[in-house]
Amino acid sequence: MKAAVLHRYDETLGSGRFVEYEDWPDPKIESPTDVIVRIGGAGVCRTDLHVVEGIWRSKVQVSLPYVMGHENAGWVEAMGSAVTGVKVGDPVICHPLVTSGHCLACRRGDDMHADESRFPGINADGGYAQYLRTGQRSLIKLPKTLAPKDVAPYTDAGLTAYRAAKKASRHLLPGEFAVVIGAGGLGHIGIQVLAALCAAEIVIVDRSETALKLAQECGAHHAVKADGSELERVLEITRGQGAEAVIDFVGEGDAVAQGLAMTRNAGTYYVVGYGGRIELPTLDMVTSEKSIVGNLVGTWPELVELMALADRGLVHLKTREYKLQDANQALLDLHHGKVSGRAVLIP
Amino acid sequence: MKAAVLHRYDETLGSGRFVEYEDWPDPKIESPTDVIVRIGGAGVCRTDLHVVEGIWRSKVQVSLPYVMGHENAGWVEAMGSAVTGVKVGDPVICHPLVTSGHCLACRRGDDMHADESRFPGINADGGYAQYLRTGQRSLIKLPKTLAPKDVAPYTDAGLTAYRAAKKASRHLLPGEFAVVIGAGGLGHIGIQVLAALCAAEIVIVDRSETALKLAQECGAHHAVKADGSELERVLEITRGQGAEAVIDFVGEGDAVAQGLAMTRNAGTYYVVGYGGRIELPTLDMVTSEKSIVGNLVGTWPELVELMALADRGLVHLKTREYKLQDANQALLDLHHGKVSGRAVLIP
Amino acid sequence: MKAAVLHRYDETLGSGRFVEYEDWPDPKIESPTDVIVRIGGAGVCRTDLHVVEGIWRSKVQVSLPYVMGHENAGWVEAMGSAVTGVKVGDPVICHPLVTSGHCLACRRGDDMHADESRFPGINADGGYAQYLRTGQRSLIKLPKTLAPKDVAPYTDAGLTAYRAAKKASRHLLPGEFAVVIGAGGLGHIGIQVLAALCAAEIVIVDRSETALKLAQECGAHHAVKADGSELERVLEITRGQGAEAVIDFVGEGDAVAQGLAMTRNAGTYYVVGYGGRIELPTLDMVTSEKSIVGNLVGTWPELVELMALADRGLVHLKTREYKLQDANQALLDLHHGKVSGRAVLIP
Amino acid sequence: MKAAVLHRYDETLGSGRFVEYEDWPDPKIESPTDVIVRIGGAGVCRTDLHVVEGIWRSKVQVSLPYVMGHENAGWVEAMGSAVTGVKVGDPVICHPLVTSGHCLACRRGDDMHADESRFPGINADGGYAQYLRTGQRSLIKLPKTLAPKDVAPYTDAGLTAYRAAKKASRHLLPGEFAVVIGAGGLGHIGIQVLAALCAAEIVIVDRSETALKLAQECGAHHAVKADGSELERVLEITRGQGAEAVIDFVGEGDAVAQGLAMTRNAGTYYVVGYGGRIELPTLDMVTSEKSIVGNLVGTWPELVELMALADRGLVHLKTREYKLQDANQALLDLHHGKVSGRAVLIP
Repeated sequence: MKAAVLHRYDETLGSGRFVEYEDWPDPKIESPTDVIVRIGGAGVCRTDLHVVEGIWRSKVQVSLPYVMGHENAGWVEAMGSAVTGVKVGDPVICHPLVTSGHCLACRRGDDMHADESRFPGINADGGYAQYLRTGQRSLIKLPKTLAPKDVAPYTDAGLTAYRAAKKASRHLLPGEFAVVIGAGGLGHIGIQVLAALCAAEIVIVDRSETALKLAQECGAHHAVKADGSELERVLEITRGQGAEAVIDFVGEGDAVAQGLAMTRNAGTYYVVGYGGRIELPTLDMVTSEKSIVGNLVGTWPELVELMALADRGLVHLKTREYKLQDANQALLDLHHGKVSGRAVLIP
Repeated sequence: MKAAVLHRYDETLGSGRFVEYEDWPDPKIESPTDVIVRIGGAGVCRTDLHVVEGIWRSKVQVSLPYVMGHENAGWVEAMGSAVTGVKVGDPVICHPLVTSGHCLACRRGDDMHADESRFPGINADGGYAQYLRTGQRSLIKLPKTLAPKDVAPYTDAGLTAYRAAKKASRHLLPGEFAVVIGAGGLGHIGIQVLAALCAAEIVIVDRSETALKLAQECGAHHAVKADGSELERVLEITRGQGAEAVIDFVGEGDAVAQGLAMTRNAGTYYVVGYGGRIELPTLDMVTSEKSIVGNLVGTWPELVELMALADRGLVHLKTREYKLQDANQALLDLHHGKVSGRAVLIP
Repeated sequence: MKAAVLHRYDETLGSGRFVEYEDWPDPKIESPTDVIVRIGGAGVCRTDLHVVEGIWRSKVQVSLPYVMGHENAGWVEAMGSAVTGVKVGDPVICHPLVTSGHCLACRRGDDMHADESRFPGINADGGYAQYLRTGQRSLIKLPKTLAPKDVAPYTDAGLTAYRAAKKASRHLLPGEFAVVIGAGGLGHIGIQVLAALCAAEIVIVDRSETALKLAQECGAHHAVKADGSELERVLEITRGQGAEAVIDFVGEGDAVAQGLAMTRNAGTYYVVGYGGRIELPTLDMVTSEKSIVGNLVGTWPELVELMALADRGLVHLKTREYKLQDANQALLDLHHGKVSGRAVLIP
Repeated sequence: MKAAVLHRYDETLGSGRFVEYEDWPDPKIESPTDVIVRIGGAGVCRTDLHVVEGIWRSKVQVSLPYVMGHENAGWVEAMGSAVTGVKVGDPVICHPLVTSGHCLACRRGDDMHADESRFPGINADGGYAQYLRTGQRSLIKLPKTLAPKDVAPYTDAGLTAYRAAKKASRHLLPGEFAVVIGAGGLGHIGIQVLAALCAAEIVIVDRSETALKLAQECGAHHAVKADGSELERVLEITRGQGAEAVIDFVGEGDAVAQGLAMTRNAGTYYVVGYGGRIELPTLDMVTSEKSIVGNLVGTWPELVELMALADRGLVHLKTREYKLQDANQALLDLHHGKVSGRAVLIP
């Protein structure tokens, strides 16, 4: 098959040529619960840029060359002997994690924290390709009305935004505020999820006027330009107190310190984006009783929940399609902030 | 009246003479809900040392000279015209915060985060004295069997430890682990609370053999000496995974980084002690889905709950009594780690 | 002053003349925290019909004659010496319960379950009158844009619906269902609250086509006529499983058994309306793991939350105005199901 | 193999000869995830008496003759081709439900509410026999120190008591009360679980002095004889308010009405036992804001949690052993209240 293959890290993202479009071995059924999916669309994620930069090298074990792409949807092509409930040709969306389901975390519904798992596109070959090997427990069947290429980015970008926004929605009451930092691929979904799951007033903070406009179309009630005055503006909007929840989809540069400062006492700062550092005195945590909560993708049931929102039109994903052979262009556009919504590669 | 008065900050705690035992104006009823309490005992807290060091200067507004002491119990001496439910002579323990009860936070039961409040001993005259001005909403009547001097440190040290341990107990399930860092005045109460409120296995980490021994008497199941190998030991005990909850009563030096490293993925690091810094990459929070939770004292209902535990003998407070005129000795002993349990000043 | 006074019970509601419009003693300030409110509007509630029927006689202590009316809003007319934060002329909405705020339930934010309280209109003179005696802790100031007569029914009908719907919203996830039985004065608010606080699909069940239409305008996604086939229809809509939450605003006749049958295994039946009986074998509760949850008004903070929804236009209350001297007509219309939305008496 | 087989219902339990000890076909591996367990012990449960009475006929589909016994532990004897993680000879305890793990409920950790499942001993052949067919997902490996015959009753009696007590422990705070009705096979475990998981004061209500004594050894703080004055006594102990949680392990006769009356306003009545009826006006639920919660067994992770308690000696199961051929004697003794703790059949 054809695939867009990563052969070397590029710490500065200066080369512009990150992956090679070339022949690559077809994936094979290796265990009775394996499924081969013919890719309909593979989302391009900021994490892929971070993979290229080598940021993930110390966190996961993977040897180059390999195939990125962890946001995948398509059609069942082949399956192992123990797979039930799907048949060849079924349109499916793939939860990014492949688990066996036997550990205590999985049995509690927390499959993201399985004792053992694969994460195709991160620590195994992913979906920048014509075919993908995944597992039965990762599949959710799509209704006929949804095309795989239109929903692929829900599996990671969407699911990550959903999980963080859902956590916040569980404690946000009417009269309270949620600040969302970053209205890009994740942020614009996070805003829609907040608007669907709670009645907090939503404040979007972003550097780009275009992103702020998209955010307001997605349901944000207040738009704040990140031009140095954003903390002051957020405090004004929140009557000097800060927000009960701050969801930071940037997680680097000033965003972290600003996000913590925008968080009200007894409130929660949800960190989703990464690249930067959290640095503050323990005294500040103690006197404020703030919480800092890390967020990583979501569970399979949460992807089912997100698809229910998508099916009812409560969440809409803005995508831009690229051919698989143009993967480098998609990565570059993302790097330069030129993708509004989410890029998807079509094999 | 007599009081032990703070006249100047001492950043290095080098003087050994922190407060002056001297005459000081009697407190007066200033509002209809005020209550004057004759002090039976005032706890000496590490926070008092931090006050002397000047750490709190930027956080609270108070002018020297003033009277420290935020852990107070005694007997009702006088009260304002609107006070009901107590009478002169009643033995009482004083919640450290004085609030009016009208803001939304108070109405939700979260009086610690009141829009307006006084914290005698921190931003107003406290209980290193013969008499204290507090408010009706701060009082809890004591059963006759409990002497004020024996319970005073529950109001802050006890209540802070209670709140953090209670938060952890809400998610700790049988088969899970709680690590407690620091078995001093707060830690030895935190351990007892954990043992009373959940069935997690409790691991105590401390530098001092004496403290470890006290912790085991309080209910800790595993004792780990903080000699550089503590992370390794905790990982061994927790089967390589870390603990679902880590409660850090130290919050400075190595404890913070160690405590975060001892926290299992998806687990929570509760920071109670302070003086140090939290420093880590956002990436680490994201991949681990850990939470960091700040903790500051507890609510009035939580002090009622803690007194219920004390009444039933489920929590026992180890105290060492000093005369009020020996306040400097008590502070010095605390500074040099010579107080096992909690120092109490008796006027 | 003038008031509409209840002199006798009428078990069959057959007289049509329930209250007398007549002179009645002005309420007086009796304690330092009392407030006299000049009534702008008083909601007419099904509970008032139940009071007339005598259903509440065994539950509360009140002697006839007295003045009904527990849904009140107006302007501050006079206040006791200890009242702060409001001034004469301020527009206010009155939480129905008057409490002192000192018991443990109040201190935990659960003022509805105060050890001691008055409930004007139920066990003390209420707001079918020109003036009402209430307490400082019951008041919420209104923004100038909201007229008392337009918001009065939020204090009980609105608040009760809000609390039940909020409880359900805390566990309803995308892809799940909420059935609302009864689209009258409470139900049409409950639907709007559900739509604002969660993304469950909302199914309304009612006998009246008009009520079903109103419910759909309020945000219900499915309308089911209660014509004997309602259980079957709800099971069809919920894929044969029943709903994760059923909120029963009727609580009498068939509604109870039907509501329990419409509840999915492990789901919750919220009972708000009353007059009927719950009757089922313990075996059915055990095998289904269903929950039955009673609901009574809401807390003061919950009324603040509801007003935040109203301020933002997320909840709209449909009212029909009657003059105070026409109180009997309002009660009759309500009895005969002729009030769409909620009747309000204007003095 | 040999088994104790149920051939006919006996509504009055008058025959004394309920099952026949006879030859019965060996169970076979029928699917790749099946496991055959050699029985070490099978618990005898009040549910078995209810099965004999025919109470369950309308709830489950099973044709006589069949083999009862849903509390099973033993050793792996054989397994299907897809089973991993256990080997022949491993000592195991069997969660009573057999599920595939693919439905949304299972994926959320709520395997008890799986869309499809088998419950051996209830709707399929159970463990009153030498061998049992179960599934991989039902097994938990035992540490070598625990013999299957000693732990078998944990799988249903223990797990049911654990789940109900755990639910209650999540909201019971220090200073609050838990009433346990019935100190038999389930109740004596429920008390130990409450004592391990929270600091509520535990009140046991039972007709039998022996049972009350056992309950106190298990950790109950107050013993109340059910002699007609039990409601009055419980109200005395709970300061006239009733208990925040009532766990009813009887669920028939007077227990239900008494249990509801013993429940404090805003408290929860957990119904575990069955045979009787819940009957009360909706008005009573509304004015009290009580909750009624049904309870049925527990999840696989909850059985893991319970085994963690057992391993640490925090829960101890009192058993009485009978030979499998004496199954009728065990059932009779249980029927006549002569089994202190829990009867176990040994093949």
